[in-house]
Amino acid sequence: MTRANLSINSDRLWATILETAEIGGTPKGGVCRLALTEEDRRVRDWFAAACREAGLELAVDSMGSMFATRPGRDMTKAPVAIGSHLDTQPTGGKFDGILGVLAGLEIARTLNEADIETDAPLMVVNWTNEEGARFAPGMIASGVYSGEVDMAFALGRPDRDGVRFGDALEAIGYRGTEPVGERRFSAMLELHIEQGPILEADGKTIGIVTAGKGSVWADGRVLGKDSHAGSTPMPMRRDALTAFSEFALAVERIAREHGPDGVGTIGVAEALPASRNTIPGEMRFTLEYRHPERAMLDSMDRAIASAASAVASARGVSIGIDRIWRKDPVSFDPRICRAVEAAAAELGLPARTITSGAGHDAFFAATVAPTAMIFVPCKDGVSHNEEESATQADCAAGANVLLRAALALAG
Amino acid sequence: MTRANLSINSDRLWATILETAEIGGTPKGGVCRLALTEEDRRVRDWFAAACREAGLELAVDSMGSMFATRPGRDMTKAPVAIGSHLDTQPTGGKFDGILGVLAGLEIARTLNEADIETDAPLMVVNWTNEEGARFAPGMIASGVYSGEVDMAFALGRPDRDGVRFGDALEAIGYRGTEPVGERRFSAMLELHIEQGPILEADGKTIGIVTAGKGSVWADGRVLGKDSHAGSTPMPMRRDALTAFSEFALAVERIAREHGPDGVGTIGVAEALPASRNTIPGEMRFTLEYRHPERAMLDSMDRAIASAASAVASARGVSIGIDRIWRKDPVSFDPRICRAVEAAAAELGLPARTITSGAGHDAFFAATVAPTAMIFVPCKDGVSHNEEESATQADCAAGANVLLRAALALAG
Repeated sequence: MTRANLSINSDRLWATILETAEIGGTPKGGVCRLALTEEDRRVRDWFAAACREAGLELAVDSMGSMFATRPGRDMTKAPVAIGSHLDTQPTGGKFDGILGVLAGLEIARTLNEADIETDAPLMVVNWTNEEGARFAPGMIASGVYSGEVDMAFALGRPDRDGVRFGDALEAIGYRGTEPVGERRFSAMLELHIEQGPILEADGKTIGIVTAGKGSVWADGRVLGKDSHAGSTPMPMRRDALTAFSEFALAVERIAREHGPDGVGTIGVAEALPASRNTIPGEMRFTLEYRHPERAMLDSMDRAIASAASAVASARGVSIGIDRIWRKDPVSFDPRICRAVEAAAAELGLPARTITSGAGHDAFFAATVAPTAMIFVPCKDGVSHNEEESATQADCAAGANVLLRAALALAG
Repeated sequence: MTRANLSINSDRLWATILETAEIGGTPKGGVCRLALTEEDRRVRDWFAAACREAGLELAVDSMGSMFATRPGRDMTKAPVAIGSHLDTQPTGGKFDGILGVLAGLEIARTLNEADIETDAPLMVVNWTNEEGARFAPGMIASGVYSGEVDMAFALGRPDRDGVRFGDALEAIGYRGTEPVGERRFSAMLELHIEQGPILEADGKTIGIVTAGKGSVWADGRVLGKDSHAGSTPMPMRRDALTAFSEFALAVERIAREHGPDGVGTIGVAEALPASRNTIPGEMRFTLEYRHPERAMLDSMDRAIASAASAVASARGVSIGIDRIWRKDPVSFDPRICRAVEAAAAELGLPARTITSGAGHDAFFAATVAPTAMIFVPCKDGVSHNEEESATQADCAAGANVLLRAALALAG
């Protein structure tokens, strides 16, 4: 094979997905491989052995992130990185993150077989603890790598049993010696399942991810007055639940008005005192909203605050919204996006631009290196679920786009 | 004093309220006196002693309800009953139920002092377990008395620790020998705090309760689809929470349309899977609605079912509403209501007709005897709360209306 008709080995890629899925595999066909557990150690050992076998040179940084280099002709050039993560949610699937790492390995194997040497080195990356399921927050190692998250904070994060991140990392033998953030990339590419329904609904195989949505996370509380459900006339109520309902519909309307990319969600909601015959005096809820454009995220901010005020004053309740987090939108590098677009076009794959609603390690990488992402469809948009599913053909298509884009960038 | 200017002793009534409030009294000034506990035994002992001291003849039925008779001239006549309950909610107040029993005792004392003999006997009643807080459902003893609730069922009801009602009754020594339902009344009067805000808002001291609201209780569930909050576009969602919100506002609107007496409440609501960045696939909630007219309650039934269908089909979710209970409205006896109205008028007390949204023992009594209720205001409409509060003047006014109505009915 030459560069022009080079293609990854679809069956081999698929076999590695199935093989690693057994490490932490669940009876329902999902994967439970929380960061820095024995299962994480086993998949890391598997990955390290596979990298060595493919002739890659492995380094591990002090956050446990793994960097496997395939040398290039010009080792003074910064490598083109390809990566994602091998950890999963507690009831996760076989593809989320994993596809992006194993596709990198598959690309190295393919290049070895075709005896192709790139100009700049290639580097396959496995970021530690993307999911944040055991140690919050997620994307913690890429966060430290980018300099946006403090390492001491990260190492001290406790799991539910009080075990600290740093100690768990030590315990599985993956606290590396390389200083975090030392390796810089000339480009970073992350292949990932979409975790949403757009590509599938639109009949596209490849998503050229041009931006990552910024997001605001908040905790909310409506305070009304709890009173007797039988003896309090409707006009004399200060019902926290109906006020909340009006606010929830306003959030939905505002997100639609900021469409097609704006989203707004209330994920947690609970009425108090939670008695069948008491009008709720309080509603506790969480709120999050996202948009890939900063100005639009600001506009959602204002619209949501104003809706809360309007509902509160019309209904004689108070609505408090405590913002706990805001992450600005990420714009991926146009040059890297064009490389992805060109690769998809060369392969004749149906593609479209898309924004990423979920967070990814590439968001942090993008702050220090030219970065883009490639999405492939997943069934019904389902992810973070044991039923998460993607086809072998789509995974291979994504890996081939990744291969071509990486070759174009590495020279 | 003669019958014409007879008045209860306001200070003495108030003193008994404060004295009994110490039995199960809470640091916050409320009362915790769950049915058939040691506290219930103590207040029953107190009441029994006070009745005997007032020359009343005490009988206890097999459900533990206490009947204290003040003989009349014509003992062949069925007594005029005055009563309510001495048990409370776990964080209850000093007035709910208690006022209606102690006012009966105060009336007996007042008549004794004035040396007035009625034609028909008077009878002060303390119904067992009105609250249903320890043994569900509430109003269980008046329910058995009326024949609407089965006694074996009632005696077998377990509390949270598995103790059965019948055993708890035995343990406090109040399982009487009198067959339940044997005593019949020529009339029944229950004085109670309103447990709602209407009298206070309307500046009225006396509520002539003409009807008790019927009610429907249901458990509800909205089933949509849980998916990723960041990557699922607004138009592709089947969000159980926003569908629920629309339904909750429809229930509110329907209750208003059935005003002023219709009420509808969602007291319990919880989003699932309760994850900050997952669109809720499910909402679980309770629903109850009430109306004093049967036809209107039926109309609310239909409107709510139709709203649920409309929301479900518009949003691609399912909404299930499982009715767990329906109690038809109760109409109080017009003759007894007129006696209450006349008593309030004689005393020059501001009065209005009102319906009872809360359930009361009088609802069951009304099915076997001519019955009515008298409401007095409680502060801010608050009840089932340690802050429950009523003024001495209002309690005395209610007791005086009760006295005059009872005298008019007993002759």
